[in-house]
Order: sequence, then C-alpha cells, then structure tokens
Amino acid sequence: MQTIALQDYKIHVGDFRQPLRNILTERQYTKIVVLVDENTRTHCLPLVAEVLADFPHFIIEIPSGELNKNIQTCTQIWTEMMRNNADRSSLTINLGGGVIGDMGGFCASTFKRGMDFLQMPTTLLSQVDASIGGKLGIDFNHIKNSVGVFNNPQTVLVDPQFLTTLSQREIRSGFGEIIKHSLIADKSQWEKLLKINDLSKVVWTDYLVPSLKIKQAIVEEDPFEKGIRKALNFGHTIGHALESMALETDNPLLHGEAIAAGMICESYLSYKKTGLTREEFEEIKAFITRIYQPRKVSEKDYPELLRLMSKDKKNEGSTINFTLLTGIGACKINETATGKEIEESMSSLNSL
Amino acid sequence: MQTIALQDYKIHVGDFRQPLRNILTERQYTKIVVLVDENTRTHCLPLVAEVLADFPHFIIEIPSGELNKNIQTCTQIWTEMMRNNADRSSLTINLGGGVIGDMGGFCASTFKRGMDFLQMPTTLLSQVDASIGGKLGIDFNHIKNSVGVFNNPQTVLVDPQFLTTLSQREIRSGFGEIIKHSLIADKSQWEKLLKINDLSKVVWTDYLVPSLKIKQAIVEEDPFEKGIRKALNFGHTIGHALESMALETDNPLLHGEAIAAGMICESYLSYKKTGLTREEFEEIKAFITRIYQPRKVSEKDYPELLRLMSKDKKNEGSTINFTLLTGIGACKINETATGKEIEESMSSLNSL
Repeated sequence: MQTIALQDYKIHVGDFRQPLRNILTERQYTKIVVLVDENTRTHCLPLVAEVLADFPHFIIEIPSGELNKNIQTCTQIWTEMMRNNADRSSLTINLGGGVIGDMGGFCASTFKRGMDFLQMPTTLLSQVDASIGGKLGIDFNHIKNSVGVFNNPQTVLVDPQFLTTLSQREIRSGFGEIIKHSLIADKSQWEKLLKINDLSKVVWTDYLVPSLKIKQAIVEEDPFEKGIRKALNFGHTIGHALESMALETDNPLLHGEAIAAGMICESYLSYKKTGLTREEFEEIKAFITRIYQPRKVSEKDYPELLRLMSKDKKNEGSTINFTLLTGIGACKINETATGKEIEESMSSLNSL
Repeated sequence: MQTIALQDYKIHVGDFRQPLRNILTERQYTKIVVLVDENTRTHCLPLVAEVLADFPHFIIEIPSGELNKNIQTCTQIWTEMMRNNADRSSLTINLGGGVIGDMGGFCASTFKRGMDFLQMPTTLLSQVDASIGGKLGIDFNHIKNSVGVFNNPQTVLVDPQFLTTLSQREIRSGFGEIIKHSLIADKSQWEKLLKINDLSKVVWTDYLVPSLKIKQAIVEEDPFEKGIRKALNFGHTIGHALESMALETDNPLLHGEAIAAGMICESYLSYKKTGLTREEFEEIKAFITRIYQPRKVSEKDYPELLRLMSKDKKNEGSTINFTLLTGIGACKINETATGKEIEESMSSLNSL
C-alpha cells in the first residue's frame, strides 16, 4: 500500500479492503450509496461486497458509457438516493471509471447540497486522472463536462486489481494520460515510456504513483484552474473536440484515444509555435502512433471540430485556448492558434 | 448605503447603482448573464438597464414561481448560457426573488464548473434571507431545495427601492423571516416587531440590517450547517411540509406564509418540550395570527405532511429534526418530536 497525502484527502494505491473498512467504521455514515454500471456491477462489485456487507448500503446501477453522462442519468441517481433515504450524512462510493466518478461525485456533491463521496476508480484512465483534482460533472448539450462543480472526495482508493477486468483498448485509453503527464512535466518518465512495447506486460503501480504525483503537484498549486493547472489540458483542446464528434457516430473514441490524437496535433502546434523541436515532435508522433494508430480526420469535419473547440470551457472570450509544449517535460499555458493553424495540426494526423 | 462585510463577500444595503458599476468596471467579465422572470423583467430590469448598457450582457428570462424552480428550468438556463458563449470568466446577475437567486446561483456555480454570480434580491424575503448564506439549489421530485450546492456570491446588492414593486402579500411573506430571526436570537427586536400594526408603513431598512446581521453571525459560525446554523430552520420543518403540500394545490402558500404557520406549530412544540412558556407561545401565536391569518390544516393531510417532513434534508437517519425555542430570543437545535406531538402541534393552527 502506498499513500499519497493531498491537502484535503488521501489516495491509497493498493488493496482497498482495509482502508475502506477503516473509513466506513470510523465515519458511521447513515447510508452508503454504491454507484455502479452494468460492467462494474458484474466485475468489481463482488470484490467490494464482502466489506459492504457489514454496513447499511444500497446499489444504484446506471447504464455505462459517456453517452449516459448527462442530466437524465443524474435525475435517476438523485431519485434513487431520495427513495432510499440517503441524506447529508450518507456516503456515495463511486465504483467505476471516469463517468461514474465524475457524475457520481457531482450527484453526491449536489444531493441535499452535498454528502461525502469516495472514489474507487476501476479503469486505468480514472485511476491516473479522473480520481484526482476534484473536477466533477456531466456533459450537457453534447459539450463535455460543461455542467459540474469542483469538490474533493473523502478518499480515493486506487486498486490495480480492478485493471485485470479491463480490455486492452481501455488500458490503452488510460495510458494516454500517463503519456501526457510525462510530456508536460517529466522528461525522464517519458524516456521510460518510450521503452514500452507491450502494454499488457506493464506493472501499472510503477507508473500510477509517479503520474498521480505529477497531477497532485499541479492541482494543489492551482485547484480552480486559474493558471498552471491548465497544463493538464495538453492534448485536450483538440482531443475533446475529436471525442465529442466521434460520440455522435457509431464508432466513438475512448477518451484516451481522442487525447492521444489531440496530443499529436498539439505537439505539432508546439513545434510550430512554442519551441518544441521537429525531432521531438516526430518522436512524440511516432510513439503515439505506434501505440494508438490514431484515426485520420476528414477535412469536411474541420468546421464542426473548430466549432466544438470554440465552446471549450477553458476558453476566455472567443479565442481557442491551448497548452503547448516548449520541449519534452515542459509546457506553456494560455497559448492560442488560428483556425488555419489548428486545421494544419489536424492534417498532421493524416500523414502518419 | 450600509455595507455588511462577510468573510468572503459584501452586502450593500441601499442604492445599487454605484456598487454595481464599480464591480462591473473592475472585474471586466467576458459576459454578463442577467437572469430575470417575467415580473422582474417588467418591474426591475428597467432600473438596472442604465448601468448594464455599458457592459456586454444578455438576458435570460425564466417563468416565475416555485413550481419552475426545477431541473427543467436549469436546463433552459444552461442552454442559453451556452448559446450566448458565457464562460467561467462571466458573471450571472440574479435579479429577482428567492427562486431566481437560488436557481440562478446554482446554475452559475455549475456552468462550466462555476462562474461568479451577484445577488440582486428584489423581494423582502430574498433580501432578508435567501441572499445570505450561500445556499443554492432547486426543488427535486417535489422536495424543496433537495439538489444544490453551498457557494457564496461575488456580492449582494440589497436595494429597498425594489420592494415598492411588491404586493402586500409578498411583503408579508418576507416579514416571516424577520420574525424568525428575532425569535431565535434577539428578544429586543421581537419586542419592536410586536408594535407593528401596518406592514405597509414600515421602513424596511431599519429591520433588514439587524436581521441580516443575525443571519450573518449564525452562518459565519457554521457555513455548512453542521450545527448552530440549524437555528435558522426554526419554523421550517413543518413550514416546508405545508409549503410543499400547498404547492400541489390551486392555492399555494408563499414561503413566508408557510413558515409563519410552521413557527406557530414549532412554538407549540417548544412550549411542550424545550421550556418556552405558555404565555410566550400565546404571544407568538397571537402576533403571527394577527399578521397572517394562517390556514387550518385538515387532519386527513397529516400522514402526507409527516411523510414530507421525513424527507427533509435536515434529518439524519429516520427521525424528524427540529429547532425549537427555549425562550424568546434563544433556541436549541437537533430536537426531535414524535408523530403524535407533531400532529398535536398542527392542531394548534386549528384553534386560532
């Protein structure tokens, strides 16, 4: 068990059972809401059931997937919380990936103006990213995370045993954020990543803890994303637009897949605008391409992608905001680019 | 102009124009969202328009009334914020009563995870109550304020000139909270109130400032309602249930009318349980009856009223929670009562 102590709460990396039992025993919650989807109900809940059996709890199951991370599902969650007499002194346990964590945290933070919640991320993506930093919320009118709050969990329990239930595609998706953390803040970690050939052989704890510590350092310096926290948006301006657009098709992208493609485009912008060298850009592009084989983007989709970017909540006023690399392991926030430059960067995906 | 300085923000009581202009000039918001209903659009917005003209703003009009304080109206507000490119560096001005302030503050606090908002309460009730204390939210499944957050406004502008647009019924409703503040914390203020015969002749600033200061002192001691802030719930356990039930009829109660009736019932419980004398109970009942002529409650509604009380978010577990008076100007939180005692207290409304 490794513990990362943040200002307001702790992340335990390792077997969740003892810390979970300790929290539930100590806090004496009136009720425990366990939020799952059909996947985590099958694959993860049985692992947790033994601890839960000793405490008053009920299960809320929501349908999995980003498409259900919306206000209708919140309405379902709030209604079931109400029907089961959850109150402000209850606890919500979010057992699942980023959708469960973001939406369950939002519902817990707003039900009767807020109860405690505990994040038990079960995907690599949510273990390395969504469970730290207090960003909660849902998609609204097809714009990602456009309704939500900042609020911290009571505790985060990161247990790599849940990762064994994931497909290789989901593992690859989560790996995108590990790449991002290295590119914006840790060149030596990047060099370690370059040696990875087979994601199925990786011991994830070795990468989770350093990655969480990079995110911790950034988030604690700037909890409300007024400044340096925007570093974490590298790859996300274009990546979110690709993700939003693919969400409307029969062939959606996982978050990390979209961000991986976004990181290639935004590395291109970094090479053009903020001092990343041509060689560094090529190295990033080659590595991400090897892991992800990103999809090409059709030119006819450029206007819609730019429109989606212009709605990004990280913008101020009408310009599109980027975090760009100044080299590997270093970045600059609040950069902008013209529509033409952005289109050119997306074209770099088409010459892989 | 009188200014009450809270820990995080200020309340200006008096002419709003100069402080509003100062804030808008200083903060340089990207956009200003002005939330109104059909009433405040007609009666209040024209007074504000002169200041707003110099700043980029747009109007969102929602239908008035507690029945519209729900997630559907939030969806309308968020959609219009999005369509007008509001962002995290925008400001929402809530120009209206408690519904506008609570719901507009909730939407501002959750749109893109939060922008600033400014409360411009236009009813006596919201001037004395809803604009202080950071409680934001909406009704959900007919349970009042059951979805929301705690968050403070940038500033509150309380201008008594807006009160001239109100009906006497609305003034009476707001007066209920002034009565409550006196009963829980200020005996000398209560004695001053007893001399009021005609609400239409009252100079409200004289009562607003002391009442706001009582609420400020309580809220600052306990911002998240873990303890003493529950004092402010006096009259509200039964009052909220009466209000919720009446909301479903053709003859809804205004909030302050429901709380006035609730204060009679809970004063009865205080006399039975926590040391309020028979004479004090009679004095409270006589004064409230003179001002409000509260409705009788039918015995056949008792089960539904008790059910509504059992859903109150102030409860912990299955007991119904009350704040009761130990005398005039003093109270005790976390008191409980049996269903039979609560029914008896409601019967006291029927012997007026």
